[in-house]
Amino acid sequence: MTVPGDILVDVDDTSAPFRDGPLGPEPSATVIIFGATGDLTSRKVVPALFELSRAGYLAPETAVVGAARRVKSTEGFRAEMAAAIRAHARTQPIAEADLALFLRRVHYQPLEFEVPSDYTALREFLETPSRGRTFPRNRVAYLATAPAFFSMVTHNLREAGLLYEPGGEPWSRVVFEKPFGHDLQSAQALNRQLSQCLAESQICRIDHYLGKDTVQNLLAFRFGNGLFEPIFNRRYVDHVQVTVAEDQGIEGARGAFYDQTGALRDVVQNHVLQLLCLVAMEPPSVCGAEEIRAEKVKVLQALCAEDAGFGWAVRGQYGEGPLGRAYRDEDRIAANSNTETYAAMRVYIENWRWAGVPFLLRTGKRMPVRRTEIVVVFRRPPTQLFRTVRCVGDVCRLAAMEPNLIIFRIQPDEGVLMDLMVKRPGMNMDLHRVTSRFYYRDAFPQALPDAYERLLVDVIRGDQTLFTHSTEIERAWAFLTPLLDYWGAVPPRDFPNYAAGSWGPSAADRLFDGLGGHWRNTREP
Amino acid sequence: MTVPGDILVDVDDTSAPFRDGPLGPEPSATVIIFGATGDLTSRKVVPALFELSRAGYLAPETAVVGAARRVKSTEGFRAEMAAAIRAHARTQPIAEADLALFLRRVHYQPLEFEVPSDYTALREFLETPSRGRTFPRNRVAYLATAPAFFSMVTHNLREAGLLYEPGGEPWSRVVFEKPFGHDLQSAQALNRQLSQCLAESQICRIDHYLGKDTVQNLLAFRFGNGLFEPIFNRRYVDHVQVTVAEDQGIEGARGAFYDQTGALRDVVQNHVLQLLCLVAMEPPSVCGAEEIRAEKVKVLQALCAEDAGFGWAVRGQYGEGPLGRAYRDEDRIAANSNTETYAAMRVYIENWRWAGVPFLLRTGKRMPVRRTEIVVVFRRPPTQLFRTVRCVGDVCRLAAMEPNLIIFRIQPDEGVLMDLMVKRPGMNMDLHRVTSRFYYRDAFPQALPDAYERLLVDVIRGDQTLFTHSTEIERAWAFLTPLLDYWGAVPPRDFPNYAAGSWGPSAADRLFDGLGGHWRNTREP
Repeated sequence: MTVPGDILVDVDDTSAPFRDGPLGPEPSATVIIFGATGDLTSRKVVPALFELSRAGYLAPETAVVGAARRVKSTEGFRAEMAAAIRAHARTQPIAEADLALFLRRVHYQPLEFEVPSDYTALREFLETPSRGRTFPRNRVAYLATAPAFFSMVTHNLREAGLLYEPGGEPWSRVVFEKPFGHDLQSAQALNRQLSQCLAESQICRIDHYLGKDTVQNLLAFRFGNGLFEPIFNRRYVDHVQVTVAEDQGIEGARGAFYDQTGALRDVVQNHVLQLLCLVAMEPPSVCGAEEIRAEKVKVLQALCAEDAGFGWAVRGQYGEGPLGRAYRDEDRIAANSNTETYAAMRVYIENWRWAGVPFLLRTGKRMPVRRTEIVVVFRRPPTQLFRTVRCVGDVCRLAAMEPNLIIFRIQPDEGVLMDLMVKRPGMNMDLHRVTSRFYYRDAFPQALPDAYERLLVDVIRGDQTLFTHSTEIERAWAFLTPLLDYWGAVPPRDFPNYAAGSWGPSAADRLFDGLGGHWRNTREP
Repeated sequence: MTVPGDILVDVDDTSAPFRDGPLGPEPSATVIIFGATGDLTSRKVVPALFELSRAGYLAPETAVVGAARRVKSTEGFRAEMAAAIRAHARTQPIAEADLALFLRRVHYQPLEFEVPSDYTALREFLETPSRGRTFPRNRVAYLATAPAFFSMVTHNLREAGLLYEPGGEPWSRVVFEKPFGHDLQSAQALNRQLSQCLAESQICRIDHYLGKDTVQNLLAFRFGNGLFEPIFNRRYVDHVQVTVAEDQGIEGARGAFYDQTGALRDVVQNHVLQLLCLVAMEPPSVCGAEEIRAEKVKVLQALCAEDAGFGWAVRGQYGEGPLGRAYRDEDRIAANSNTETYAAMRVYIENWRWAGVPFLLRTGKRMPVRRTEIVVVFRRPPTQLFRTVRCVGDVCRLAAMEPNLIIFRIQPDEGVLMDLMVKRPGMNMDLHRVTSRFYYRDAFPQALPDAYERLLVDVIRGDQTLFTHSTEIERAWAFLTPLLDYWGAVPPRDFPNYAAGSWGPSAADRLFDGLGGHWRNTREP
């Protein structure tokens, strides 16, 4: 007789159990943070390094060296970093032992970006044992600096002999924060300058969106399930929406930078196009950095707009509204600024899989909710066999047949939702829309790691999958630069054209002309 | 500027609102229940009629006439039915006004099934106005009787002039409870006898599973969504499991009947094969009774087993176990009974859509849970790009790649579940299985109607979609009769072969030989 018990499909107990966490000792390294007294260092980079140290992802010898203009002692820097960790670490409260252990890894060395001798001094500091302390020879140079210094710091690193030849041991890697260029020409120039000092394999260009679990899940979901890949193509997909909505406006000191940048450069060129690549790319033959990045490049190569003019793109700037004052009234923003705080566009990917399927992309500040999501809207069934109703309680209306949606919720409320039609209970065969939900918070007890944690581990591991290749950067700029030039040359006539707290300018709805469908504007979690 | 607000995709406000409920006055009818003092009448038929009356689905004139052997007054019958409604009505508590209104519809007329003059008396009772009361001329004869009386009652109804010619007004319809035949020959004989008195359009053969909202949802889900129909075929589906599991054993007086019947006749021939039809049938061109039933017949026509012997089917009988005593020790069961309380089989549907896809069917008593579900198991992705893990907390094992499942939960915990792979949060690209869930109880405040309510409304409406056509019945028997004959001729050697409270005999696992995969045995809701 069969013994009662729960049996899962395909039980596979043969593997040895292991604890989910560090797979083995990561290589030891010295992480040198350039711009160590800046906001990014204290809010993101150092708290992420602390989490990695706490969770065992850093080798015991791995050290963190702050390098910045201001003269201060290691003790002073450690105190500042302790305060930063207390304020910004993901796992609260902080165990004092963890913090003490981490702070012993931390050092400080004053350095002016433009002074070559400071780099020589840094090298001496790193290579001279002192009081029993030696720094690991592998080196990560993390450039938490303004982009204007990228080339200079890299050049000075090389001149001081702080960079090794590529491909050997010990290794050196340089991490660049965005923005990486402000148009095609500047990005090409920057790539060219860096390539004189570094091989592509030594360069890690950060787009922190790629470090998010939910962004990586786009590939896991698409290629780890047998269910969805067969229908992710032009035959079954009506269109795709990518939304990166922020409810915030301009935060304090960032105004001056933002007013020079705008939504297209700040969000579309990197985050939005990266999401587009991941939802649209072909499956790679193996799961390697080169293979995945090559597939993303193929998407960007195939990217195009429908018409030769720029009617496929809409810009916006928020005026006063439910969420607050107008952009032009924000701190450090010119009263006549024409910078866009909203950008939307309808683009196509002209390849075998996606030809003819519109991809509708948008980002904006002062939207009603903070939300990043990708909505795959499927075609309706070819015949309408049943009546569709929309009901509130038992008051119903007949409604148009509705499409299925798969919604990848990147942040917040991370998860995957599916809008489906089911039979409404009762005496008639009426269809009613419901949502089938999976949220990360329900399925996994552990919190999602911060993107910077994952990216820093990958720098040390030498896995470039989640960093953008020079070709990706340039392709993205190549696509957007004509639009940037056009918007720069032709001032908008209607700014401000959306209220702070609204879903953007009404002109963006016109991107659906001839398609049917609407932006998915909803506050539901 | 755009006004903030939630906009849904494809808003369609043009239709007039209506209250979900009776669409219009259903035709008035006299519902005559034959076997009105039996269990089915008091537990199911009359409580369902009461719900319909309460909710406005019965025309004001519609009447219910109990007909049975025992001599009793209408008042006495009303008192019994009031007690039955109080005990079994779905909506509790019962409003006294609703009950009083319903009881005014109820009458009683003594009738012996085999006495022709009693039918003449019934006709006189129905056609003679009395104290201002007239019965609607449309007639439903509900045969809540043993199958042995089906033919006789129908014959006597006709002889007494209680049946009208088909296709006109007023109309008469006859409802037959299962079992409808006990093998191909008896079902054919019964259909032949009934066809001498009734047109197929006047016959309603009840399989109460078809009245369940979740069963009807199989069609709504498959053909009302653009997402799933493209992958419901041999290219993407690995196999399909249909499980009708009961945790109960033999309840009291039913033993004598069950011991003559067995699981194959009691559940597989009707419920299981109907579920199979609905999950496998082609979309009809319109949503009509003839069209849907024709598609189901096509599935049954294409049904076949792999080998000429009977190795594709497994029978079982429960012995003593965690849930109680052995079948052979139950009331009114022979101590050497060879009746199967469990049946499982692997069948194929040899048509363009499903050729080569195994359908694994099973039903059993004294299984660990009460559960009816259909599990569509999809093929695994063609390449394994990522590692798959199974984790309890943070202790993980490497696991085999897992298939996606779509689980139609018919009862209880009605809903649709999907087993998906997502990226497990953390520093590696590991896949982990999660379940995306939709439950009816979460989406709809109203309780699901009882299957009998829906079926009775459809009888009065004259919609035969949810009743089984004579061809369906005969095709189902034609497929199963050779197996029934074989099992009848060759006594089992291993009964009892599963423990009460287990998932059935171990031999049933062998139905997966050569396939990979297992029965989905889980208690999770």
